[in-house]
Amino acid sequence: MKKPKAVVLFSGGLDSTTALCWALSKGYDCLAVSFNYGQRHSRENAAARAIARRLGVELYEIKLDFPWFAASSLVNGRMKLPDVGLSEIGRKGSIPSTYVPGRNLVFASVGFSLADAAGAAAVVLGPNVVDYSGYPDCRPAFYRALEKAAAQGTRSGAGGKKIKLLTPLIKLSKAEIARLAVKLKAPLELTWSCYSGGARPCGRCDSCKLRAKGFADAGLTDPAQGGRRTGRNRK
Amino acid sequence: MKKPKAVVLFSGGLDSTTALCWALSKGYDCLAVSFNYGQRHSRENAAARAIARRLGVELYEIKLDFPWFAASSLVNGRMKLPDVGLSEIGRKGSIPSTYVPGRNLVFASVGFSLADAAGAAAVVLGPNVVDYSGYPDCRPAFYRALEKAAAQGTRSGAGGKKIKLLTPLIKLSKAEIARLAVKLKAPLELTWSCYSGGARPCGRCDSCKLRAKGFADAGLTDPAQGGRRTGRNRK
Repeated sequence: MKKPKAVVLFSGGLDSTTALCWALSKGYDCLAVSFNYGQRHSRENAAARAIARRLGVELYEIKLDFPWFAASSLVNGRMKLPDVGLSEIGRKGSIPSTYVPGRNLVFASVGFSLADAAGAAAVVLGPNVVDYSGYPDCRPAFYRALEKAAAQGTRSGAGGKKIKLLTPLIKLSKAEIARLAVKLKAPLELTWSCYSGGARPCGRCDSCKLRAKGFADAGLTDPAQGGRRTGRNRK
Repeated sequence: MKKPKAVVLFSGGLDSTTALCWALSKGYDCLAVSFNYGQRHSRENAAARAIARRLGVELYEIKLDFPWFAASSLVNGRMKLPDVGLSEIGRKGSIPSTYVPGRNLVFASVGFSLADAAGAAAVVLGPNVVDYSGYPDCRPAFYRALEKAAAQGTRSGAGGKKIKLLTPLIKLSKAEIARLAVKLKAPLELTWSCYSGGARPCGRCDSCKLRAKGFADAGLTDPAQGGRRTGRNRK
């Protein structure tokens, strides 16, 4: 029997690499999509390419050039990246300056567009519990609502074949994600999570701190720690 | 008092030009967004520029390069454009080959992204009743569902300021749209609706036929008829 297809939004970081390995483990024939939207850490695109190659997954690299994304410190190199205590990350009511307006809405919509064209059964994303109280577009209610909208606005949905939106990591802590990644034999040494674009992870940004804490809490060693190169630094 | 902002998805055709003039007439400070997604009729981008200039509206021109859009005859120049009787257009259950997978989902999501960044109160689109039985992403139920999803997945929505999704033309016939456009003094002579990319409207594609019928039914003369140039042909 032919495998069902899934479109996986894939940045080359810990979470989306784990989500991709999860989808493969569930028997999906995966199409990966990575975005270059001017983010500081475009080095993750090189990581995405290396991981897709290693896993034998087709990768679509999509460029999105939206001038208004420069309102985010994740994109605008002239803004300072937040350097806050871990206890403040994801604090209810505060949206970090790294929030990119409507980013996951756009990303997931592009995923549904490809899924509709390819006849895929699912769109897979890797948002998780650590993010979702801080970023509005990481909340489960958002994904449920978007799945409903896509069921109305696609050829598949109109034909009665609703495309599922799967967020397998949404309720996991970083430690649980690290454990799942190891269990699924994800090529962690190729992943890139740091928000900065240096040759090695900076160790100071939210993303580096969360990742380090996740591996520490899980009692695991992060194979990417120490800044093993995944490709040329494209900053 | 400062005017509320609206993001208007704007192709330079009859419908979206009417939607833009409607939003201006309602007192919105408008930001227009046009997309270049490889469509045959990229000549409409020149029309969009000319109309935005005439109306004094800021225009964002966004390039979307999605290889899977080539599944549509609206994008793929090697496919034949449908040449069907008017009675067949929008026939229930049939999706025309000009359908671009998930296009309006992506377009509206980009609109919400800009609206979230700009603090806009609304996203305005021009789909209408003639299209919506044929294209799944022109149905009112889709837009209501997407408005709900965006309320969950944006900074504005999370802060209690839901961004409205307005589709002022959705229940209008082409004749009613032609009448509204004339009433609002829309610069119809600058608009471009034809699916082909020639120097003049082809008169044979769905879009040309619908537009001609609309003006005829309304008892109006189309100022763009005869192929008055709006800019250089960029095909």
